Amino acid sequence: MENQSGSKTAGKAIRCRAAVCRNPGEALIIEEIEVEPPKAWEIRIKILCTSLCHSDITFWKISTGPFAVFPRIFGHEAVGVVESVGAHVEEVEEGDRVVPVFHPNCRECGDCKSQKGNECSIFGYKVETKMPRDATSRFKGMNGEDMHHFFYVSSFTQYTVVDVANVVKISNQIPVDKACLLSCGISTGIGAAWKVADIEQGSTVAIFGLGAVGLAVAEGARLRGASKIIGVDLNEEKFEIGRKFGVTDFINPTACVEKKVSEVIMGITDGGADYSFECIGLASLMEDAFHCTRQGWGKTVILGVEKHATPLPLNTYFLLRGRSVSGCFFGGLKPKSDIPMLAHKYLNKELNLDGFITHQLSLQDINKAFHLMLQGKCIRCIIWMD
Amino acid sequence: MENQSGSKTAGKAIRCRAAVCRNPGEALIIEEIEVEPPKAWEIRIKILCTSLCHSDITFWKISTGPFAVFPRIFGHEAVGVVESVGAHVEEVEEGDRVVPVFHPNCRECGDCKSQKGNECSIFGYKVETKMPRDATSRFKGMNGEDMHHFFYVSSFTQYTVVDVANVVKISNQIPVDKACLLSCGISTGIGAAWKVADIEQGSTVAIFGLGAVGLAVAEGARLRGASKIIGVDLNEEKFEIGRKFGVTDFINPTACVEKKVSEVIMGITDGGADYSFECIGLASLMEDAFHCTRQGWGKTVILGVEKHATPLPLNTYFLLRGRSVSGCFFGGLKPKSDIPMLAHKYLNKELNLDGFITHQLSLQDINKAFHLMLQGKCIRCIIWMD
Repeated sequence: MENQSGSKTAGKAIRCRAAVCRNPGEALIIEEIEVEPPKAWEIRIKILCTSLCHSDITFWKISTGPFAVFPRIFGHEAVGVVESVGAHVEEVEEGDRVVPVFHPNCRECGDCKSQKGNECSIFGYKVETKMPRDATSRFKGMNGEDMHHFFYVSSFTQYTVVDVANVVKISNQIPVDKACLLSCGISTGIGAAWKVADIEQGSTVAIFGLGAVGLAVAEGARLRGASKIIGVDLNEEKFEIGRKFGVTDFINPTACVEKKVSEVIMGITDGGADYSFECIGLASLMEDAFHCTRQGWGKTVILGVEKHATPLPLNTYFLLRGRSVSGCFFGGLKPKSDIPMLAHKYLNKELNLDGFITHQLSLQDINKAFHLMLQGKCIRCIIWMD
Repeated sequence: MENQSGSKTAGKAIRCRAAVCRNPGEALIIEEIEVEPPKAWEIRIKILCTSLCHSDITFWKISTGPFAVFPRIFGHEAVGVVESVGAHVEEVEEGDRVVPVFHPNCRECGDCKSQKGNECSIFGYKVETKMPRDATSRFKGMNGEDMHHFFYVSSFTQYTVVDVANVVKISNQIPVDKACLLSCGISTGIGAAWKVADIEQGSTVAIFGLGAVGLAVAEGARLRGASKIIGVDLNEEKFEIGRKFGVTDFINPTACVEKKVSEVIMGITDGGADYSFECIGLASLMEDAFHCTRQGWGKTVILGVEKHATPLPLNTYFLLRGRSVSGCFFGGLKPKSDIPMLAHKYLNKELNLDGFITHQLSLQDINKAFHLMLQGKCIRCIIWMD
């Protein structure tokens, strides 16, 4: 008996509404789709709400190469309720509140069992447009065509199917819109500040890019007692929201005429920031982030995926003066243990999550969320499914 | 009273023999020179023995630019006895056994007082060819001309003057030739393994370049219980000596035809080394060192000074999979506290220093040491002053 769930819909395909991308860069279309039952090690989730992350937009725009596959269901920040589970799934059951996560955490491999790192050595990023174990789709359009998944989550749909390695059970106490934020960007920023950089009290911090990830880095730095948190962004409106997350100084690169951004930061930090974070994905900014750190122990953390696959040219003499550069996905956090930890900190009123939510919309208006994000008007827009 | 010392020579210039470099890349000439008394915060040292480090050769060859200054007295790995001290020097006194060190450690600045890092923020590397405080020379040739210093040490002379920030007092118990080794290369390698990488029991380690620094990394890794220590060198003779320091596997890049060196290391470490070290100073090898580390927590430590100032082009997607790159001078060690710690470990018979000494010569034969090093025949050649 493969289906171990008691839900009425268990074992059957579910018809529901989804925002489907049929062509790169084009408005999503709300369509009826069929979501197949979960296979072994899989979980079907009723999505409660999802939010738009900049990575959705990055991949939505891609029109050539192996990632340009359509029709596709984007979305990877979400929260939902388990509708049914496939064989061998013991970790969650019908009715559990869960956060799907693009970053796998199988808990079985040596890497997941290790205290170090957060890369799962069984599930990588190899079949990003299908289910990870059998590389097939669980979504069918009304004409019977397979639809492509996205980042092992695909949350712009009322129901989705994810692997058990990509699901985290979460307390029912945390409001669903706040839980949704822990699914990707906010966890990434806070994790980078806490786990990768391990910021100490009194540190100086420079953050390149004040989107949700950068603001979450600021929140992480604020909670660690950083004495100066410098935000760098082309959009001056970001400074206003940045203050709520502890940003103390703001630099608009277009206003830096006589000095480079890194030189300005060197000046206001008395020789360089203790920690810098690149949250955009441009090699030139990564270089600035590297060059603004202090000698002795300056640490740069790269969070952005370089948009043009341009290498970061490191001046190794600068490196030899005691600096380092690290990179991570999902802020170096292990999803299954660290998302509940962050939820706990929210419930304890330590962590500010509310401030990230700037907009709320319903699924049928999802294209407005794309516009808001593209115009730099939005940090996180919660998209409600019902 | 500026001179606080009771030695007979204190306060006067000392005539002694030195190996002087008058032109880049040319054989050193044994000449009589005059070594002036130490000024305030300075110490005049009777060198007991010195050893040749590859950095001496690198700078000896430089024929253009700000570092091509002659006549010059090279040498920066040494041990000696304090002959006299200038005003304000309280840390050492006449007769103390000391190790001069190129890497400053003033113990007064915020960086030296911090537990993190090892870069002194008062003394950097700004006037590398003169004394650090007043940018003048303490060496005069017999025609009265000033001679240039090297790396704040200049040890290819029977007497030298160094700043108190560049001197470490050391136990008389440790044999002088072993103490000499702690002055630069060996400390650099062991420090990188212990302080920067912080290698754990059972780790896999790849070392690019099996000179003294690379072998010292191996010794540090061996003492931390690394399970596999892979040495990469063009000179197969290095494998034989490498075994004495714990090297378990050897790769000659010229024998890697079908696979890159990094791919070979990926293969024999089941997915990549936990730690890699570049001990040569070539961006292409730094890239290999980066690419041979495992995802999740692979850490690359750069020790070599890039010979052509070529940047290291980092693939940032590879970095995002949980990797990091660090750089350091002097292995991240704080000379004043860590050199005595290493001496203690030698006296406790934990640390193998004897194996690094492959040759011994007298000052008059110093050019033979250059030939041995250039031919790859020598790990460390001790040059005795008397």
